[in-house]
Amino acid sequence: MRILGIDPGLRTLGWGVIESQNGRLRHVANGLCKSQASDDLAIRLLSLNRQIAAVIAEFAPDEAGIEQTFVNKDGVATLKLGQARGVALLTLAQAGLPIGEYAPNRVKKTVVGVGHAEKDQVLHMVKIQLPGCNPAGPDAADALAIAICHALYGGTNGAMRLREVRA
Amino acid sequence: MRILGIDPGLRTLGWGVIESQNGRLRHVANGLCKSQASDDLAIRLLSLNRQIAAVIAEFAPDEAGIEQTFVNKDGVATLKLGQARGVALLTLAQAGLPIGEYAPNRVKKTVVGVGHAEKDQVLHMVKIQLPGCNPAGPDAADALAIAICHALYGGTNGAMRLREVRA
Repeated sequence: MRILGIDPGLRTLGWGVIESQNGRLRHVANGLCKSQASDDLAIRLLSLNRQIAAVIAEFAPDEAGIEQTFVNKDGVATLKLGQARGVALLTLAQAGLPIGEYAPNRVKKTVVGVGHAEKDQVLHMVKIQLPGCNPAGPDAADALAIAICHALYGGTNGAMRLREVRA
Repeated sequence: MRILGIDPGLRTLGWGVIESQNGRLRHVANGLCKSQASDDLAIRLLSLNRQIAAVIAEFAPDEAGIEQTFVNKDGVATLKLGQARGVALLTLAQAGLPIGEYAPNRVKKTVVGVGHAEKDQVLHMVKIQLPGCNPAGPDAADALAIAICHALYGGTNGAMRLREVRA
């Protein structure tokens, strides 16, 4: 089974594709979708939509995992991230992919062993669990971690995949 | 010029279409796009995307206006609204529509005369400014008010239309 992981963001959205077979994981590809802060919001969202759709077209994943958004006190940041996340979810749904949603703490706990790991630890453990991969940046490493999380927790029950999985 | 106004929301998204010609406004249609709270978020966003696209296909607007989201202290609500708003903006951009964004206070001030008008006042003034219209609900009345705002402020400068207009 091929899994696409998405770490949502408006300026930089990380993505990672892995192959999961009989409990073994293999890195396929990873990268970043970017949008220009100087562009209008609608243009940025359209650009992200097209970049994600291109990744799906190229790597043909069977399922997808996406990070749940951490809601903080910065409402403006939450709104920006929400808009990007909505577009990412829509793009996955338009491609007909079953989607698992994972809380950031659960992703970290799955890949690093603790829920409050730093970005560097996630990067380090992703490289160990997916030999040969070279993430394009912290957001791409996070996306690969989300894909790993989906491979471990999203595949056991078809119904589960479309529900939110909370830490 | 035909204008589509959008009042974004995840559970209920209002829309309204008006015709603006030589400073005269005419009601064309209005309604609500709804999504089921019991459905998965991605399914809800896909449903909203299809409903908005159907409205665009049926009424063929030339331009669109959308309300800026009011960021409040409820991060979860902001996130939900942001995801729906992102999908609405994307759907407008996919249709190639120039988009104006208007702060809620500006919309109210334009239609009612004061920035802190109640929903009932907006409904009342929309009915007066668009004779014969019967909004499907408060969100549809808001959407018509946003379309009116775009007709008055979005049409003077092509470049303006794609920028955020703040109150």
